[in-house]
Amino acid sequence: MTINYPAGQGHLNSNPNKAKYQKKAINYAKRGMTLEGNLSQSNETYRAQDIAIVYKKPTPIQVVDVDYPKRSAAVIKKAYYRKASTTDYNGIYKGYYIDFEAKETHNTTTFPLSNLQEHQIKHLTDCSNHGGISFVIISFIELHRLFAMEIDCLNTFWKRQYTSDGKKSISLSEIEENAVELHYQLNPIIPYIDAVDIFIADKRKS
Amino acid sequence: MTINYPAGQGHLNSNPNKAKYQKKAINYAKRGMTLEGNLSQSNETYRAQDIAIVYKKPTPIQVVDVDYPKRSAAVIKKAYYRKASTTDYNGIYKGYYIDFEAKETHNTTTFPLSNLQEHQIKHLTDCSNHGGISFVIISFIELHRLFAMEIDCLNTFWKRQYTSDGKKSISLSEIEENAVELHYQLNPIIPYIDAVDIFIADKRKS
Repeated sequence: MTINYPAGQGHLNSNPNKAKYQKKAINYAKRGMTLEGNLSQSNETYRAQDIAIVYKKPTPIQVVDVDYPKRSAAVIKKAYYRKASTTDYNGIYKGYYIDFEAKETHNTTTFPLSNLQEHQIKHLTDCSNHGGISFVIISFIELHRLFAMEIDCLNTFWKRQYTSDGKKSISLSEIEENAVELHYQLNPIIPYIDAVDIFIADKRKS
Repeated sequence: MTINYPAGQGHLNSNPNKAKYQKKAINYAKRGMTLEGNLSQSNETYRAQDIAIVYKKPTPIQVVDVDYPKRSAAVIKKAYYRKASTTDYNGIYKGYYIDFEAKETHNTTTFPLSNLQEHQIKHLTDCSNHGGISFVIISFIELHRLFAMEIDCLNTFWKRQYTSDGKKSISLSEIEENAVELHYQLNPIIPYIDAVDIFIADKRKS
């Protein structure tokens, strides 16, 4: 692949503030590379192409104090970040409810399970049991590699940490064997629907 | 019906801070009566009974300034409310993606369409076109009456406002004829899944 970070390319080409970003090349490159930014572009692309309707949920915030100035918008003066009840992304594709979480690691040989929380695993499992397609996108930042792992598969590794084996992570080779690798491209940057198609086919078989 | 506001009853019975709320009876009663509070209880009930997994999305907030005090949680010092991209509620029921918005009016004879926004109608329509079940819950506060109207039906009234007829509202009698009436009960307070069952049956026919 000649372009390592199509995120940057894609954003630059479409961005009306191109000159502004060129001046701040380093900061911009960082922004373009974030998993959240790439997924946001991918969701927009899928919506624009009428393939899937998926959004990231807003970060839940507990508002403590708000000012209502006359003739202008309410200003929140004090608030705290809250823990999300569910996962970050959900939506619909070909009539299927889809639900996923996206996590990145700087590790190069394992994905630590501490990146995920018990309630997120439960939520993904519940959605899958109700007929949805649930998965986790795992990004190995340093390796520029991305995977989508379906929840049933992830659950076997999640449960393993409570056994005598007790491994608190999934090795890269286990991920290579059990997840779908996604390859960065232009539009969408992260073609996660390719993995969803595979998960749907597997679900129909079982 | 002997109990007009089962919201209050349901919350009181299940709330560990019962005494606290009894001291603030008036505020509590108000909170118990809100459409959002009643839907929140209903979503919790449906999840607890493993019937459906539906959540309200957090309100989107644009954070401008954050303090990171040592040894304690980040404090948001300045932020603004943003317009939501989609609707307030979505989730999964019997393998169906469901998506809805909830609106209330103090009017007693009409529901003004100004309660809804073009992008919400578009989002609900898109979700329905992809195989989802999309609807709007309409609450007539003064009448203590509640309805669920499926998006295809709502669209006929939405489009009417741009015709020569130009009505900017839906009359109560039109709603009685074209929507599913929901009756407050105990658990869940708003049994909106009853309406979803009807919408699914209609969708299968067409």
